[in-house]
Amino acid sequence: MPTTPFDPPALEPGTLRVLPLGGLGEVGRNMTVFEYEGKLLVVDCGVLFPEEHQPGVDLILPDFEPIKGRLDDIVGVVLTHGHEDHIGAVPYLLKLKQDIPIVGSGLTLALTEAKLKEHRIRPFSLTVAEGQHERLGPFDLEFIAVNHSIPDALAVSIRTPAGTVLATGDFKMDQLPLDGRLTDLRAFARLGEEGVDLFMVDSTNADVPGFTPLEREIGPVLDQVIGKSPRRVIVASFSSHVHRVQQVLDAAAAHGRRVALLGRSMVRNMTIAEDLGYLNVPDGVLIDYRKARDLPDDKIVYMSTGSQGEPMAVLSRMANLDHAIEPGPGDTVILASSLIPGNENAVYRVIDGLTKLGAHVVHKGNAKVHVSGHAAAGELLYCYNILKPKNVLPIHGEYRHLMANAKLAQDTGIAPERTILGENGTVIDLKDGDARVVGQLDLGFVYVDGSTVGEITDADLKDRRILGEEGFISVIVVVDASTGKVISGPEIHARGFAEDDAVFESVKPKIAAALAEAAKSGVRDSHALSQIVRRTIGRWVNQSLRRRPMIVPLVIEA
Amino acid sequence: MPTTPFDPPALEPGTLRVLPLGGLGEVGRNMTVFEYEGKLLVVDCGVLFPEEHQPGVDLILPDFEPIKGRLDDIVGVVLTHGHEDHIGAVPYLLKLKQDIPIVGSGLTLALTEAKLKEHRIRPFSLTVAEGQHERLGPFDLEFIAVNHSIPDALAVSIRTPAGTVLATGDFKMDQLPLDGRLTDLRAFARLGEEGVDLFMVDSTNADVPGFTPLEREIGPVLDQVIGKSPRRVIVASFSSHVHRVQQVLDAAAAHGRRVALLGRSMVRNMTIAEDLGYLNVPDGVLIDYRKARDLPDDKIVYMSTGSQGEPMAVLSRMANLDHAIEPGPGDTVILASSLIPGNENAVYRVIDGLTKLGAHVVHKGNAKVHVSGHAAAGELLYCYNILKPKNVLPIHGEYRHLMANAKLAQDTGIAPERTILGENGTVIDLKDGDARVVGQLDLGFVYVDGSTVGEITDADLKDRRILGEEGFISVIVVVDASTGKVISGPEIHARGFAEDDAVFESVKPKIAAALAEAAKSGVRDSHALSQIVRRTIGRWVNQSLRRRPMIVPLVIEA
Repeated sequence: MPTTPFDPPALEPGTLRVLPLGGLGEVGRNMTVFEYEGKLLVVDCGVLFPEEHQPGVDLILPDFEPIKGRLDDIVGVVLTHGHEDHIGAVPYLLKLKQDIPIVGSGLTLALTEAKLKEHRIRPFSLTVAEGQHERLGPFDLEFIAVNHSIPDALAVSIRTPAGTVLATGDFKMDQLPLDGRLTDLRAFARLGEEGVDLFMVDSTNADVPGFTPLEREIGPVLDQVIGKSPRRVIVASFSSHVHRVQQVLDAAAAHGRRVALLGRSMVRNMTIAEDLGYLNVPDGVLIDYRKARDLPDDKIVYMSTGSQGEPMAVLSRMANLDHAIEPGPGDTVILASSLIPGNENAVYRVIDGLTKLGAHVVHKGNAKVHVSGHAAAGELLYCYNILKPKNVLPIHGEYRHLMANAKLAQDTGIAPERTILGENGTVIDLKDGDARVVGQLDLGFVYVDGSTVGEITDADLKDRRILGEEGFISVIVVVDASTGKVISGPEIHARGFAEDDAVFESVKPKIAAALAEAAKSGVRDSHALSQIVRRTIGRWVNQSLRRRPMIVPLVIEA
Repeated sequence: MPTTPFDPPALEPGTLRVLPLGGLGEVGRNMTVFEYEGKLLVVDCGVLFPEEHQPGVDLILPDFEPIKGRLDDIVGVVLTHGHEDHIGAVPYLLKLKQDIPIVGSGLTLALTEAKLKEHRIRPFSLTVAEGQHERLGPFDLEFIAVNHSIPDALAVSIRTPAGTVLATGDFKMDQLPLDGRLTDLRAFARLGEEGVDLFMVDSTNADVPGFTPLEREIGPVLDQVIGKSPRRVIVASFSSHVHRVQQVLDAAAAHGRRVALLGRSMVRNMTIAEDLGYLNVPDGVLIDYRKARDLPDDKIVYMSTGSQGEPMAVLSRMANLDHAIEPGPGDTVILASSLIPGNENAVYRVIDGLTKLGAHVVHKGNAKVHVSGHAAAGELLYCYNILKPKNVLPIHGEYRHLMANAKLAQDTGIAPERTILGENGTVIDLKDGDARVVGQLDLGFVYVDGSTVGEITDADLKDRRILGEEGFISVIVVVDASTGKVISGPEIHARGFAEDDAVFESVKPKIAAALAEAAKSGVRDSHALSQIVRRTIGRWVNQSLRRRPMIVPLVIEA
């Protein structure tokens, strides 16, 4: 695995270059750039959500640096499906150049366009469907149906004279999908016969043994839970999980209940899905939540967001009695969703809050109300055996997932040197059935933070972590510019700090003395004086209070 | 469940009062106070570890407020076992009064004394064993063996003329424990025959169906993994899990490997455990880690701390190549431990780091290398049926755990009104087989933060969260005290903030103008001027940068 950056050679004619900008070594911000004969094709353009060591950050984008100077060479952006980690960064790319065409299925583009509308961008878009072929510049594309936790997902094969790539996007192989739309293994087999030179394959569940259960196994559980509930039912799930919502609508209808959608993204996405025919709403089942409150308790199901414990989403607000709908004894809450690592405490807080209010909480820990959207190890083995690809690049996963996926490929007989463990910025050249790493770019995290993109640095985040853990102390001293004598201060303010300001009385004379000493020896420079203040109070606070707050000395000349 | 505080009545003669100060609604800081005829008995005195919304906090203590004025009435502190969430707050209690006797088993007291030594406290201690009876003031105590993830754990029954309480501490019912020391169901049966008026019972795994697997099922897995490892083996686990370490020692010995202990707490605890005979070290197996590096790679097992991804512990440092032992290809790392909620991201980061270095990582997600230390639902049902207690108080758990435990009690026929769902500060009076809630004290979180105890407030933590998410902007202006005119500034400094300081040039004139306006209308008060500065820059930063940093205006009169 390459970790030290090194420059790739100039791209040879007749060679396809593959450059993942995101999604390798992380679950999120999926994006890969393909280059052939001077033209660039982008597959996916997603965001990554920040972890706790990236406080205050709203979103993380792929680093566009390698393509920033070549926007005119981009022939299109193919979006495999409508999840944030595959489409979320499109607005930020199109802000650099609005007329880059975006290509995807009907639902994928509708969700992307809704997002772009918020950024006031009207894109050039090309809607495609499974089985369709399109040529974008030198790239011959074929779109292939795959099954995932959102409808209308596509894999894409990319043919150039240098060879054929198959990129799965996110997928699983539910053999009895709700919409009958299977991952098209016949197409996989045909491509395999023709020869796949590079297989780029979803690794998310590569370390999960066996097979992902069928989505339709959840229906009877929902049906039973809703059927037995004496009062209101509240279901939380991902706002793009059309099939999960479909099963909730069906179960509600079967028990004579109506369904009110809650949460902005839930309402928006399900309206799009219904308009495009992906969601089949049983006659008269949906009801506006304001009217739903007039129904008897045993006639209503609320379908809401917030299954990950997001503090501002509907479910958290309900648990905090900060929402018009207040759960109580006899109500049932179903978390029909996964538990994304890092969200555990938030989700358990919501479960505890709801339990405390008297609600009965059903979640994947105590009932079968969720299945994953990604292929587990057993399914991936089928893919390798049907495709028999010449080379494999596991994508979409933390390093342990990529590793597990490479191992599966090797178990089916693919040579270890043909399973490439890459990371973001790994440059892979493909020609004559041979894929090899030829470079490693040094890419960074691009943080969206308030109205800024890419301005916040890792040093700023380190400052935030120190401020968040330890608070700060500011010391203001006004000195006479000519004599260096202290005119006013030291005045000390601390925030996020255990002690009240009185504790600092004892250090003020030390600071004054240090400054007087400096003045006597002729120090006038306010930066040098600041350093003296910093050292004096820093040493004192470390020793006497055993803390390491940020220290902000402010020496003002007047 | 009581949530609004209300005062309990004065305690009637002949009545036992039970007051949990910690551990109800949380996993941690277990502590209960029993009062009878003017005397107090404390059972357990543990710490709680902070969550992500409590940044910078080192530890959280039970709120000692209700007993602070009555330290002379405390006849003793019974410690059920040696885990931090049961003994960690003892030093802070003894700092209030050093001669309060502490009572516990040999290992429990040895671990507590090691901790007290760091605080330079030599306690008055009374070592007890299973089967032993002791009278402390008006309380007749009987100690009963229970099985847990640390040896020598005890339940305690507390008899007074008001009735009999049985408090389990933490326990499970491993029927083939490594040390042969079973949870003493014969004693439970005998107490049940005599009549248990209040059963205070561990709820941690009450929502886990079935039975906790046997600790000894892990041994063969460790044996197999260690046997198959071509090079070094590194095992991480809790530093107090004597039986887990025992199984590692045995497996290492069986394969001709020696074991080096790594991490201060691992070395300290295992030295204590070996000295007291709880750990049986096979002849010559232990080796100092400095000498271990001279052994061939296939002759060594490192036994380390850091199984929860703690950044400063040995395993994290190894994963970051910040430790003398650098894992590499062919090495095997075993995380023989649970994954405590909230630690997932940290643990996965360590697993990814080790995988990246080439190590094979075995953890409870892919092998049976951990079992819980707490009784699951099936085991708790046995307890209820053997004891048939008159009243039940589920302890030790988040609200959902307490709730699940109460439900189990009810399933065995205990009336709902006799299963008390309490929280910290719930006052329960027991007399004539009747336990009832008579009050609810308003207790707080007591934060240990650097050298301070109880000084940091929730407002300080809110400041830290704002600082951590958004950073701060300080604005310094020096004004003439008599005229209110600006002499120097505004000078603006920002930290943890996306923009560089240049961005603030455009707001400086606005601040100057606002201050000039104020001066003209006669405002002189520096607090009022500060508020003007705060409003001016606050509005500007919210609107133009879409951020809400902390704003620290400093108006200095000179």
